[in-house]
Amino acid sequence: MPSLLPTSPDALALAGLLGRAMARVEKRLRLQLQSELPPVQRLLEHVERYHGKMVRPYVAILSALASLPTPTAPASLDDATADSAVAEPHIVVACVCEMIHIATLVHDDVLDDADTRRQSATVNSLRGNEAAVILGDYLFSAAYHLCSQLDDQAVALLVAQVGMTLCAGELLQLHHRENFSLDEATYYTIVEKKTASLIAAACKLGASGAGEPTARRFYDFGIALGIAFQIQDDLLDLTGQERVVGKSLGKDLEKGKLTLPVIHHLAAASPPQRARSLEVLSLAAGDSTHRHGAEVVAALKSTGSIDHARHVAEKFVAKAKLALDPIPDSPAKRVLLGLADAVVARAF
Amino acid sequence: MPSLLPTSPDALALAGLLGRAMARVEKRLRLQLQSELPPVQRLLEHVERYHGKMVRPYVAILSALASLPTPTAPASLDDATADSAVAEPHIVVACVCEMIHIATLVHDDVLDDADTRRQSATVNSLRGNEAAVILGDYLFSAAYHLCSQLDDQAVALLVAQVGMTLCAGELLQLHHRENFSLDEATYYTIVEKKTASLIAAACKLGASGAGEPTARRFYDFGIALGIAFQIQDDLLDLTGQERVVGKSLGKDLEKGKLTLPVIHHLAAASPPQRARSLEVLSLAAGDSTHRHGAEVVAALKSTGSIDHARHVAEKFVAKAKLALDPIPDSPAKRVLLGLADAVVARAF
Repeated sequence: MPSLLPTSPDALALAGLLGRAMARVEKRLRLQLQSELPPVQRLLEHVERYHGKMVRPYVAILSALASLPTPTAPASLDDATADSAVAEPHIVVACVCEMIHIATLVHDDVLDDADTRRQSATVNSLRGNEAAVILGDYLFSAAYHLCSQLDDQAVALLVAQVGMTLCAGELLQLHHRENFSLDEATYYTIVEKKTASLIAAACKLGASGAGEPTARRFYDFGIALGIAFQIQDDLLDLTGQERVVGKSLGKDLEKGKLTLPVIHHLAAASPPQRARSLEVLSLAAGDSTHRHGAEVVAALKSTGSIDHARHVAEKFVAKAKLALDPIPDSPAKRVLLGLADAVVARAF
Repeated sequence: MPSLLPTSPDALALAGLLGRAMARVEKRLRLQLQSELPPVQRLLEHVERYHGKMVRPYVAILSALASLPTPTAPASLDDATADSAVAEPHIVVACVCEMIHIATLVHDDVLDDADTRRQSATVNSLRGNEAAVILGDYLFSAAYHLCSQLDDQAVALLVAQVGMTLCAGELLQLHHRENFSLDEATYYTIVEKKTASLIAAACKLGASGAGEPTARRFYDFGIALGIAFQIQDDLLDLTGQERVVGKSLGKDLEKGKLTLPVIHHLAAASPPQRARSLEVLSLAAGDSTHRHGAEVVAALKSTGSIDHARHVAEKFVAKAKLALDPIPDSPAKRVLLGLADAVVARAF
């Protein structure tokens, strides 16, 4: 899977440091996801393939670096000093957020009946729904187990709080399925809870060494970034290429999930167009052939709703960047801002 | 649902104290299971009905009382002093273990396609599999959130470890489904992991104030008790009355789960009987009409396999009691021993 990291000179300067930090994250993940029971071990090895864009680990590590007291750090530091700036708790936080994310992916794939994830067969398609549900539970517990090992108990408390929040967001979304009068405000509530809360936690915990006011800025950055991320995900589900995105697409229409372009379209359409779109959306809900997808996308384009959603996602990226305005300039900060741009520019 | 607490004079003497402790557990549970989102709140209220025998909270509270330094406590104490012997962390431990248990029940019901739990409709039958999977995830997170609030971080660490262990046990069981040559040793491994580990954690954490050697005895008590508990559950799935047990039965045969009576039968049967039983078990696996249940039970009885399993369960109860031998006699200890007897005597 391609990386979301920018290719700017800053990113190239940090590449070695970030690469070594990510290698530590992957090593720690592999260590935590080990079982002495061979059937369990095989399942854990399978989900290692789910590591994709690693957005949560990257923002955790970059937030740790960007919140260092020395503004020019770490590019000005030698390698060993820079590496030590990414302390073990940062690596653990990065792992924990990724594990919680993978746990939700494994369960999402069951709920979506999805076959493909990160170009691989899903656990449910390979081993059945039961194995996938229990494996997801295992991953949640393994994530909590890992963060309970840190001296700072605040990490486990925030991670568990976020676990509740993201489930609440998913339940709220489920409740509003096929609710064709869903408003934008409720959509943002859902997206903030189900996606942005975990990305924000990764940012905040990464920056926690810099004290609460600074950590809060990284949290706000993560919330806005996470909302932008989810809007782009929803856009890709409508207009992306399955081969490039690496997972089953068209699921939102099938599942009757109303996303930003659809909500905008239903509000902006003329009464006859709206009536027709409601009809098509109803037909698309529950239809696994996705044969109504093209008509829906054409309708969304006719009211500028795809562009609207893209524009909103960009506004959230701008809001994210603004939250970091008081943070001193540094290569790590610039890479973080570049990553925010990449979140809405991505095709995967 | 009837209680597993004995009706001995000791139990009657402790009834007030235990009743007040359980009221605190239920209050704490209700407090932790609250959401400002009405659709989430409604689901959380529904699972409150899942509180059944409350085995884990009872063993946590009784272990706390039985491990007090004063052997005759708490019957000899006045009410206020006795109540304070059940400290807030004990209440939290009791809640956390029950929440983890309820989370697994909610997911089990999805995996078993079960309609009824504790005489109520299951979440999956009422709101669909998706709501049930996400609600279970919410409950896991809420349990970890609650135990992360305790000063003693060892609680969260053990609870998360047990979360991994019980999922590993479930995955191992899944792996051996329809493995008609499953041996007793692997069955005990599965049962110890998927059921006994959480009951043992409740006992150990309840007794943790008394120091590691004492807490370890309560842990050993819980492991043996938990294995006995699961064997009895497996027996009830074969021979219980759905109305009395309060949940859908006959699921083990349908799901191809080999339990102790079946394992014993296949080892003890004559070759022709074994061949016929394998045929019937294969037919029963995947058959939701359960029409082969009576023939299987008759076959199990013909080799004394139901009695064998009952006998093994009783042996584990004896082993559990033996683990508490060094613990000074007290009313709370005697009630705990009585509860161990009730675990295998129960019809629900």
